[in-house]
Amino acid sequence: MYDCIIVGMGPAGMSAGIYAKRSGLKTLILEKKAPGGLINITNLVDNYLGYDNITGPELAMKMYEHVKNNEVEYKIEEVTKIKKEGETFKIETNKNNYESLTVILAGGRQPRKLELEDKLKDLKISRCAICDAPLYKEKEVLVIGAGNSAFEEGIYLSEFANKLTILARSEVKADEEMVQDAKNRKNIEIIEGEEVKSITKEDEKYIVETENQTIKVDGIFSYIGYTPMTEYLSNLNILESTGYIEAKETETEVSGLYACGDIIKKELYQIITATSEGAIAATKAKKYLTEKEK
Amino acid sequence: MYDCIIVGMGPAGMSAGIYAKRSGLKTLILEKKAPGGLINITNLVDNYLGYDNITGPELAMKMYEHVKNNEVEYKIEEVTKIKKEGETFKIETNKNNYESLTVILAGGRQPRKLELEDKLKDLKISRCAICDAPLYKEKEVLVIGAGNSAFEEGIYLSEFANKLTILARSEVKADEEMVQDAKNRKNIEIIEGEEVKSITKEDEKYIVETENQTIKVDGIFSYIGYTPMTEYLSNLNILESTGYIEAKETETEVSGLYACGDIIKKELYQIITATSEGAIAATKAKKYLTEKEK
Repeated sequence: MYDCIIVGMGPAGMSAGIYAKRSGLKTLILEKKAPGGLINITNLVDNYLGYDNITGPELAMKMYEHVKNNEVEYKIEEVTKIKKEGETFKIETNKNNYESLTVILAGGRQPRKLELEDKLKDLKISRCAICDAPLYKEKEVLVIGAGNSAFEEGIYLSEFANKLTILARSEVKADEEMVQDAKNRKNIEIIEGEEVKSITKEDEKYIVETENQTIKVDGIFSYIGYTPMTEYLSNLNILESTGYIEAKETETEVSGLYACGDIIKKELYQIITATSEGAIAATKAKKYLTEKEK
Repeated sequence: MYDCIIVGMGPAGMSAGIYAKRSGLKTLILEKKAPGGLINITNLVDNYLGYDNITGPELAMKMYEHVKNNEVEYKIEEVTKIKKEGETFKIETNKNNYESLTVILAGGRQPRKLELEDKLKDLKISRCAICDAPLYKEKEVLVIGAGNSAFEEGIYLSEFANKLTILARSEVKADEEMVQDAKNRKNIEIIEGEEVKSITKEDEKYIVETENQTIKVDGIFSYIGYTPMTEYLSNLNILESTGYIEAKETETEVSGLYACGDIIKKELYQIITATSEGAIAATKAKKYLTEKEK
C-alpha cells in the first residue's frame, strides 16, 4: 500500500514526487513513456525562472536527476484504470496492480492532430523541431499554429531551413517579443487567418492549399493545441466536456484524488505553473492523510 | 509611463518580470534591498524542481542572471506609496515618482520578531544560518521554531555547533524526513510544546528560561513565522486583518493591480509557488492591457 501514487512524470508529477517524498509519504510515480513529458519535445525553455535559454531535454534531465537524488520511486508503466474502493485507490497498469491512499493525476496532454492528418498515407507531420530540424537543412518548411509553440519552434527551424512559413488559422497569439523576432528574420513568412484546406504529395514535396495560397514544402510541423490524456479516467466523474480535469487548487471532487499540470482545466499552461501545482497537490495529499490519522 | 511596475525582486517578482518583459510590456522592477528576497538568507533549497541541494544565495543568483539576460529593467529603490488615479497607478519611492498602467505587488514578507526581542539590549537574534553559522563553531546554539525553516537551518547549524537545541512552542510542523534527520543527529535536542519565558545574559552566554527548562547557549536563531511587508499599502483596501493581501489567482479588488508570492494570503508559501504566481500575475496584466486596447 502506498501513501501517494502519482500518475505522470512531467514537471508536475516530478515536483509532486519530491514534495510527497520529502514530507514522508511512501510515494510511487508511474509514467508510461519517459520522464519529462512535453518538455522532451520542446526546443528552448526561456521562462522557467533560474534556467535561462535551456533546451527542453536538458531541463527534463535536471528535473529527473533531482527526483533520482531524492530517491523517489518510479516505474515505467502505463496506468489503464483507477477506481476508489472504500478509502483505497486501486490502480491498474499494463503490468501490475497497485493500491494507494491518495492519487495525484499529472498525466499531461498530447499535441492535437490535424483533421486531415490520417487521410494522406505518406504524410509525416512533425511536432518536435529539436528532433527533426536537421532533416530540413536548406529546405522549405511549413509550421502550422498561432501560439508560442509555433513561433518558438518556427524560429528554431528557420536556422536550418532556407524558407519557413508560419500558417496561423486565427490571429497570431504568441508573445510579442517572439513575433517580432520572427518578423525580423528574412526567411520567415507569416500567414494569418488562413487554414489548411488540403495536403497532397508530389515528388517528395508537400503541396499545401489554403484559402488563397499554395505552399510547396519539404516538411510540415504542427502546433495546433493539445488534448488531455484522460480517457482512462472517465469512470471517475472528474472530467469536464473537453476532457480536462476539473480541479480547485488541485483538489478533485473525489477525496484523496488530486490533479495538477497540463491535465487540468486552467488559464495558464506553463512549466512553472505545473511544478507549482505539483507541490500544492502533494502538500494537500499529505495534509489529507495527516488529518485522517487523527 | 510603464505598462507594468513590479514591486519586489524575490522569486515572485523576478518571474513576473521575465513573463511581463517577454510578453512585450514596458516593465520595471523596484526592489529596496537586493534581488532574491528571503532565499538570500536561506541555507539550502531542496525542492525547487531542477535544482537539487542548491544554496539559497546561489539560486537567487541564477534567478537574477536570468532576469538580467532578459534585460528586464530594475532599480534599487524603496516604494513608499501607491495610489490609483483614473486608470494610472502613481508609485512613489524614496528617490523618484513613476507611473504605470498595471502594478504587481511581490514584496514578500519578513521574519517575525520574538516578543521579548526588543527588551534585552544585548540580545542578538540571528535569522540566517548560512551567514552566522561559522560564529558558532563548537559552541552551543538554540533554534526557536517548529516548522521547516527551524529544522532546515537547525540541521545546517548542527554541523558547526557542538550542541543544538530546537525549541518548538507548538508541536513540530516540519517535514517528517527533516525531523527524522534532526532526531538522528546526536548533537540535536528537540523540545516540543515549550515557550521562551525569559532571556538573560551572563558572561557572554544567554540563559533561556522555558516552562520547565533552563538552556544556556552562545547564540540564538529564530524562525517563528513571518510578517508581510504591506504597511505602505493600507490606503488601497486590499489587505486582510493579518496584513496579507487578499488576491484571487493574483487578482486584487483593484483592477490592474496584482499580487503574488509571500505577500498574499494563501496555503503554501514556497519558492515554486511564488514563481508560478509571478508568471500568472504578469500574464493577467498583459491580458488586462490587451483587452483595454481593443
